[in-house]
Amino acid sequence: MADPLPSWNEGPVKNAILSFIEETSRVGGSNYISIKDRIAVFDEDGTLWVEQPLYVQFFFAVDRVKELAPQHPEWRNQEPFKSILEDKLDVVQGLNEKEIAQILVATHAGMSVEQFQQAVKRWLDVAVHPRFNRKFTELVYQPMLEVIHLLKMHQFHIYIVSGAGQEFMRTYSEQVYKIPVENVIGTAGKMKYQNKDGDVDLIKLPELLFVNNFAGKVEGINLFVGKKPSIAFGNSIGDQQMLEWTQSNTGKTLQLLVHHDDPKREYAYGPNSKIGTFSEALMDEAVKKNWIVISMKNDWETLFPPEKPKESKEE
Amino acid sequence: MADPLPSWNEGPVKNAILSFIEETSRVGGSNYISIKDRIAVFDEDGTLWVEQPLYVQFFFAVDRVKELAPQHPEWRNQEPFKSILEDKLDVVQGLNEKEIAQILVATHAGMSVEQFQQAVKRWLDVAVHPRFNRKFTELVYQPMLEVIHLLKMHQFHIYIVSGAGQEFMRTYSEQVYKIPVENVIGTAGKMKYQNKDGDVDLIKLPELLFVNNFAGKVEGINLFVGKKPSIAFGNSIGDQQMLEWTQSNTGKTLQLLVHHDDPKREYAYGPNSKIGTFSEALMDEAVKKNWIVISMKNDWETLFPPEKPKESKEE
Repeated sequence: MADPLPSWNEGPVKNAILSFIEETSRVGGSNYISIKDRIAVFDEDGTLWVEQPLYVQFFFAVDRVKELAPQHPEWRNQEPFKSILEDKLDVVQGLNEKEIAQILVATHAGMSVEQFQQAVKRWLDVAVHPRFNRKFTELVYQPMLEVIHLLKMHQFHIYIVSGAGQEFMRTYSEQVYKIPVENVIGTAGKMKYQNKDGDVDLIKLPELLFVNNFAGKVEGINLFVGKKPSIAFGNSIGDQQMLEWTQSNTGKTLQLLVHHDDPKREYAYGPNSKIGTFSEALMDEAVKKNWIVISMKNDWETLFPPEKPKESKEE
Repeated sequence: MADPLPSWNEGPVKNAILSFIEETSRVGGSNYISIKDRIAVFDEDGTLWVEQPLYVQFFFAVDRVKELAPQHPEWRNQEPFKSILEDKLDVVQGLNEKEIAQILVATHAGMSVEQFQQAVKRWLDVAVHPRFNRKFTELVYQPMLEVIHLLKMHQFHIYIVSGAGQEFMRTYSEQVYKIPVENVIGTAGKMKYQNKDGDVDLIKLPELLFVNNFAGKVEGINLFVGKKPSIAFGNSIGDQQMLEWTQSNTGKTLQLLVHHDDPKREYAYGPNSKIGTFSEALMDEAVKKNWIVISMKNDWETLFPPEKPKESKEE
C-alpha cells in the first residue's frame, strides 16, 4: 500500500498519527470510535498554514487599512492605525488582543457578509507572502493536508477551530483544505439582518459575538459541534484548552502541537514570539500530558505543496 | 414504488414537496442543486412537534422552577416565578420574551453542560403531555419525520433552527429526528470553561450569547451553516425572516408554514396565540410570496407516530 503520509518523515510522530487513526476506526477494536463521534479539530494559523511574520488575516487587514485610509484622515495620528500606515511591522506584530480587535472591527464591518467575502477573495487572488513570494493559500503545510485527507478517508468529521475570523476563513476553506464552510469555527462578529423592500442582507456589525481563542475554542467547539474531539492539532498557547478538552474525552485521544523550529525552510519561534507563542509552560504541559510535539524540521519531509506553474500573462 | 410520504394526503402541498426534492436532486435538471449546497432548515416548536399549551422546554422549565423553589423562597412573591408556582397556565402562556429569558436563565444556568443535559434527559424520560398523556418526544409530527427522511435520502443537510435552547434540543435530536447534535441551531447561552486540577468543564452562565428567533434565525443559519437554505419549514412569525432568507437563494427554493387548524386531533391557533403566533400579516406574506401553507387538518393523514406498547412495570 502507498504511504498515506508521504510528506512525514518516519518516526514516532508519524507512527502515533497512523496508529491513532487505525485503532479508532477498526471495528471491534478496544479503541474504536463510532463514526458520528469521530471529531478532529485543527487550529489554522501556524498549524495548517504560515502565520509569520503576521497572521494572514492581518496582512489582509493591513492592506485594507491602507485602502480605507483616505476616508479616515484621523488614522494618521491614531494608533494602532498610524503604525500600520507607516509600515512598522514590529509594532504591528506586537499588538495586543484589544488593538487587534480594533483593527478587525474597523476593516471587517459595515458591509454585508457577501461583500466582505468578495473583498477577501479579491485580495487572496493577488496578495503574496513577503518572504516566499507565493499566494497565502499556497503556503499551507502539505503534511497537514495529508493528515486531513487521511482522517476524512476514515470518516472523521474535520473542523478548523481558529482565532481567525470565521467569514474570512470560509472564503477558502473548501478550496484549500476541502473543509466545508459549515465546519469552520472562528471568531465571529455580530450581524444585523436587513430587509429593504425584499432585498435581504446580513450586515457585519463592528462588534464581536465571541472570540474563538484559548478557552473560547472549547466554547466554540461546544457551540458548533456539541461533542468532544478525539484528535486535536495546535501550535500555540491559544490551543492549550482545546487540547485539554480533547484529552478529557473518555475515548482514545491524541493531541499534537506543531513546533516551528525550522528557520531555513520556514521560521523558528517559540516563547518569545507574540504571534503563535509556544511558551515554556506549554512545552512543560505537553511533556506532562503526553501531547506530541511535531518538529517541523525533523518530522516534515516537505513543507508546502509543489508550486503550480504560473500562467504566463503574455500568452 | 412505495409512497415516501404516506402520512401526507394527496394534494398540491404533498406534490410541491415531492417535486422540489425530485427537481433539485436530478442531475442535469435546470433546478439541480449540488449536494454540498442542499440545505434544509426546520423550525421545531409547532413545526416538528407540539408546542401547545406550552413549549416543551417551558414545561421542563416549569417543573424545574418547582424543583428549585425551596432554594428560592423569594420566588413565591416574585413574578414570573410566582405564577409558575401557582400553576397559572394562562399567565405562563402570556409571558413576554424577557420574562421567558429570566426563567430560562434561572433554571438552565450554574451547572455544567453535561449536568444540564442529564437533567433534561431524566425529565424527558418521565414527563408527559397534559392532554395527550404521551412523552413529549413521541408528540412529533409523523409527516415531518417522513419529509426529513426523504430529504436525507436525497443528501440534503438538515438543520433544526429553533428559538429553543440548543443544549436542550441536543439531548434528543439524534434519537427523535436522526439529526446529529452539530446540526441543531438554537438559542445559546454563554459558557465558562473551567479547569480544576485537570478536571475540565463547561459551565452554563446565566447570560445569553444569542437568541435564535426572528432575524436571529438568519444570523444563526449564517453562523452555523454559512450557506443559504434551499427549503425551509416554519409555523409562526418567528420563522418569517428564515423563509425570506431561504427565498433569496439564487437556486430553486421552497418555503412552507404549518397551520394549526385541527382542534380535534391537535390544536387550532393563529393570530391570537402568544405561542406559535401565525399572524394575518404572515398569512398575507405567505400568499404574496407563494409560501405554502400546510393545513394540519387537510394535508396530514396521520399526526403522530404510533404509540409504542408500554413496558409493563409489573412483569
